[in-house]
Amino acid sequence: MSQPPAPPLDLTADVARLTAGLIDIESVSGNETAIADVVEQALVPLAHLEVLRDGDCVMARTMLGRDERVILAGHLDTVPLPTRAGSRGTVPSRWEGEVLFGRGATDMKGGVAVQLALAATLVDPTRDITFVFYDHEEVEASLSGLGRVARSHPEWLQADFAVLLEPTNGTVEGGCNGTARFDVRVTGRASHAARAWMGVNAIHGAAEILGRLRDHEPATVRVDGLDYRESLNAVRIAGGTAGNVIPDSTVIEVNYRFAPDKGPDEAEAYVGALLEGFDVERTDAAPGARPGLQHPAAAAFVAAVGAEPKPKYGWTDVARFSALGVPAVNFGPGDALLAHTDDEHVHADAIRACLDALVAWLS
Amino acid sequence: MSQPPAPPLDLTADVARLTAGLIDIESVSGNETAIADVVEQALVPLAHLEVLRDGDCVMARTMLGRDERVILAGHLDTVPLPTRAGSRGTVPSRWEGEVLFGRGATDMKGGVAVQLALAATLVDPTRDITFVFYDHEEVEASLSGLGRVARSHPEWLQADFAVLLEPTNGTVEGGCNGTARFDVRVTGRASHAARAWMGVNAIHGAAEILGRLRDHEPATVRVDGLDYRESLNAVRIAGGTAGNVIPDSTVIEVNYRFAPDKGPDEAEAYVGALLEGFDVERTDAAPGARPGLQHPAAAAFVAAVGAEPKPKYGWTDVARFSALGVPAVNFGPGDALLAHTDDEHVHADAIRACLDALVAWLS
Repeated sequence: MSQPPAPPLDLTADVARLTAGLIDIESVSGNETAIADVVEQALVPLAHLEVLRDGDCVMARTMLGRDERVILAGHLDTVPLPTRAGSRGTVPSRWEGEVLFGRGATDMKGGVAVQLALAATLVDPTRDITFVFYDHEEVEASLSGLGRVARSHPEWLQADFAVLLEPTNGTVEGGCNGTARFDVRVTGRASHAARAWMGVNAIHGAAEILGRLRDHEPATVRVDGLDYRESLNAVRIAGGTAGNVIPDSTVIEVNYRFAPDKGPDEAEAYVGALLEGFDVERTDAAPGARPGLQHPAAAAFVAAVGAEPKPKYGWTDVARFSALGVPAVNFGPGDALLAHTDDEHVHADAIRACLDALVAWLS
Repeated sequence: MSQPPAPPLDLTADVARLTAGLIDIESVSGNETAIADVVEQALVPLAHLEVLRDGDCVMARTMLGRDERVILAGHLDTVPLPTRAGSRGTVPSRWEGEVLFGRGATDMKGGVAVQLALAATLVDPTRDITFVFYDHEEVEASLSGLGRVARSHPEWLQADFAVLLEPTNGTVEGGCNGTARFDVRVTGRASHAARAWMGVNAIHGAAEILGRLRDHEPATVRVDGLDYRESLNAVRIAGGTAGNVIPDSTVIEVNYRFAPDKGPDEAEAYVGALLEGFDVERTDAAPGARPGLQHPAAAAFVAAVGAEPKPKYGWTDVARFSALGVPAVNFGPGDALLAHTDDEHVHADAIRACLDALVAWLS
């Protein structure tokens, strides 16, 4: 896909109107060049910022020599446009009173607009700031623009603390759980179902595994002052070959969402102990992220926002920052439950309130 | 497929040599016309027999006005030829000493040869005999030539007792277990795996079902003097949609092989009671067959054969006769465990011994 150049952005306009302008530039993952271009063009004239670009990732930073540096990050891409007739969460944006509808309204062009407004107005912040506008967040992790920059220019992402402006309804969501997947295999011996005593039933052999998973009480783990609720679940099961054959194999896929006090290896040990006696193979894992709220920049941020921080359960890009040694939280306008929906929308005041909170923190 | 006409059969030859001649006429299910034609041509000249034909099912019967009538039945078709190089259970037949290799050697051209030899030589049997040579046994039940005749000419199959000459290694196998299949469904509520507490896991919900099946002790039921060993098994399980979603559905397919003291409805009630509290739907059922060995013709048959009768576990066409009100047993040359194998074979003496036993019974 290609698009004509988008009209330039006015970063000094009301931040909610700026959000509408960003929604109007369609930027489904893989099609971020147009929006990256206008973001870059809007930032380059700002004398207090150094602008960097890697593919469709645009970065801008102050170089004031402050004691601390913070990252404000957001992704430029969206999930595909709704296909249902009558959907309001599409492109271009539309206003219904002070509610803004459009693809990306919550996830996360409101946050990107707040970043841009801060970049234009905070010429003398109390902390050095690195703004990151990145591509390919809504697709497989291997394509992530943030991951690409972390690999090719890790020094661009050095900071003491990072805020991802993902929608959190104005609260601070810290860290995230890790996730690991396992295949648990039960092996039996096939036989004709009419002579079942000649075989060993691998589906019956899975009863004990499912019983242990059913009876397992997932822990809630306090990490850096936030309570992370874990989950441990069978997410898929398959066994059997035919209606007249005693099954010789059953495979159960187990997903463990573990608190950020552990890494993937500890998660594997935990699942291995729970399912002791069975063949457990780890197939996939991504570490979580500690909230890092004890860091001075983070503590100041939480104080400025004034709301009680909450844990994040799903895996987000804060884990990518955490892996780089940068504590990170989510804080942005809009309700995450509306993300990706056909009627995605955000209230103008939520965007403005987010901007005000960040200005207060960084001024 | 079509074949040139096969050479005529000599029904007075040694019954093992006659078996080889039958093997040499390839008759994979659906391709029985050539063998049915030569069987019919061999029977028509026999003045003591009335010959009937329906499609590729050939029948011949004495009409001597005896007090009892017995059926001797066998299928003309075979499973497909072996594809593995070097297989000996193929077409044409080959002798290795007194062992005859070839497709159908055990299942069941030896039995068909015994039927033909009896038809040719027993001109004055003590019981009226109906010989049935039928098509399409090795494929789905709806195609069965025996089932077709039972529907279109049920009077052709009237008898007091039937012997199916399926391979039983020279023992009498009486009746058969019935079989019924059930889908057992567990319904949950989907949620993101990172917020598992918002959902209800339908795979964990299957633990109780699998536990009951695992702990269930299948019964052995004595019916008409034979012990029928039952089986009750999960044969397939499937649940889950994605690695990050709490599964909202699991389906377990259960197969119950039930003794012939019950019908499908009693089998369903039994499974329903075992899995009480769960959603159990019957998807398929075929009744079994009582051995009927208390019938005078059957008792005389067992006495003539001189071996202790055994129960049959798998479902066979004796159940079709049973449904028509004709008690039936399996009795034939060859080891059923060799049926359908790439090296299918039978010993010449096993065929001759089967013939001798039936001659003794019917003379």
